[in-house]
Amino acid sequence: MSIPAPLQHLIKELSRLPGFGKRNAQRAALHMLTNPTKIEDIKIALTAVAEQVKTCSVCGNISMSDPCHVCNDISRETNTICVVEGVDDLWAMERSGAYKGMYHILGGVVSAIDGVRPEDIRIPQLLDRVQKGGIKEVILALGASIDGQTTSHLIARKLATLGENSSITITTLARGIPMGAEVDYMDEGTLHMALKGRVSF
Amino acid sequence: MSIPAPLQHLIKELSRLPGFGKRNAQRAALHMLTNPTKIEDIKIALTAVAEQVKTCSVCGNISMSDPCHVCNDISRETNTICVVEGVDDLWAMERSGAYKGMYHILGGVVSAIDGVRPEDIRIPQLLDRVQKGGIKEVILALGASIDGQTTSHLIARKLATLGENSSITITTLARGIPMGAEVDYMDEGTLHMALKGRVSF
Repeated sequence: MSIPAPLQHLIKELSRLPGFGKRNAQRAALHMLTNPTKIEDIKIALTAVAEQVKTCSVCGNISMSDPCHVCNDISRETNTICVVEGVDDLWAMERSGAYKGMYHILGGVVSAIDGVRPEDIRIPQLLDRVQKGGIKEVILALGASIDGQTTSHLIARKLATLGENSSITITTLARGIPMGAEVDYMDEGTLHMALKGRVSF
Repeated sequence: MSIPAPLQHLIKELSRLPGFGKRNAQRAALHMLTNPTKIEDIKIALTAVAEQVKTCSVCGNISMSDPCHVCNDISRETNTICVVEGVDDLWAMERSGAYKGMYHILGGVVSAIDGVRPEDIRIPQLLDRVQKGGIKEVILALGASIDGQTTSHLIARKLATLGENSSITITTLARGIPMGAEVDYMDEGTLHMALKGRVSF
């Protein structure tokens, strides 16, 4: 093959990243080669991330500090935990500006097909946090996929069996028609949920 | 914003790579963070590429040596040069196994919109190579885009004006229906070219 071995190795490393097929990895690697400063720039960026970015031991968020800037923010409501699948979900919630409580990042969802068990993601840590007390509401903000819903049910059941915390409210995000969407483009499931959860106008 | 600054910087660097939107860059950066060895792996791969991969001073190919392994290969036909836009085109030609001559990588095509002039890509180097003599055929294997075709015409004209090299044959890749394609899915331009270039069965 005419691709030099180190380049082939770089393409392989890049193509293992999510959202990055072999073809894109090839284009990106070639782009780096033809822009000499690019490789150094990316190496510096990678080093900075590896050295400075930490995972929060409380909620699993990534931040420059541990506990993270959200857990450290005294202006936030500490009695509410929003459970999300990944850090990008936390970012999306923060962008909306609609939430002022705490987070708990699971780092995945329980999946029979992918062999992910409840103890493989940060469910035990969530139960620990709730058991310590002071939590009034847990918002389950997982995806609407089968695995996401299964994980939500599992967490709700586990939270209910904590016993002494029977006063905790467990909620989930509203399902319905997204902003700007046309009714006739919506699938039956969404319309069903939107009708069931209809609110007074 | 809740994204740590070094991570934001990495996402920005990654999203500048071709075929890599902001969303994919974000996913890739998060993936690297959650897989601790990943950052080191990619840094090592980048270092190896920067240190070991060279650009061939003859044809512009990238290789572990200069001149590259294609230019150094004494079993190849040195009197034929195939002109391609990029290194990935060379890789595609080599995969086909149908070509045994030399290459010349332009590193782009002439484009009025993007402000790429003939002297910005490796056209002068191609004329130099031909002028040195020993070349019987130049195959123009540039893309079928407007810019690709314009560049082909420009190179053909420049090669013709070299004077002493009037014996050089200038060819281009055949246009037609690709393997496995259905006729009714082909655009008018392709069918036009395929009909014009029809061969006896």
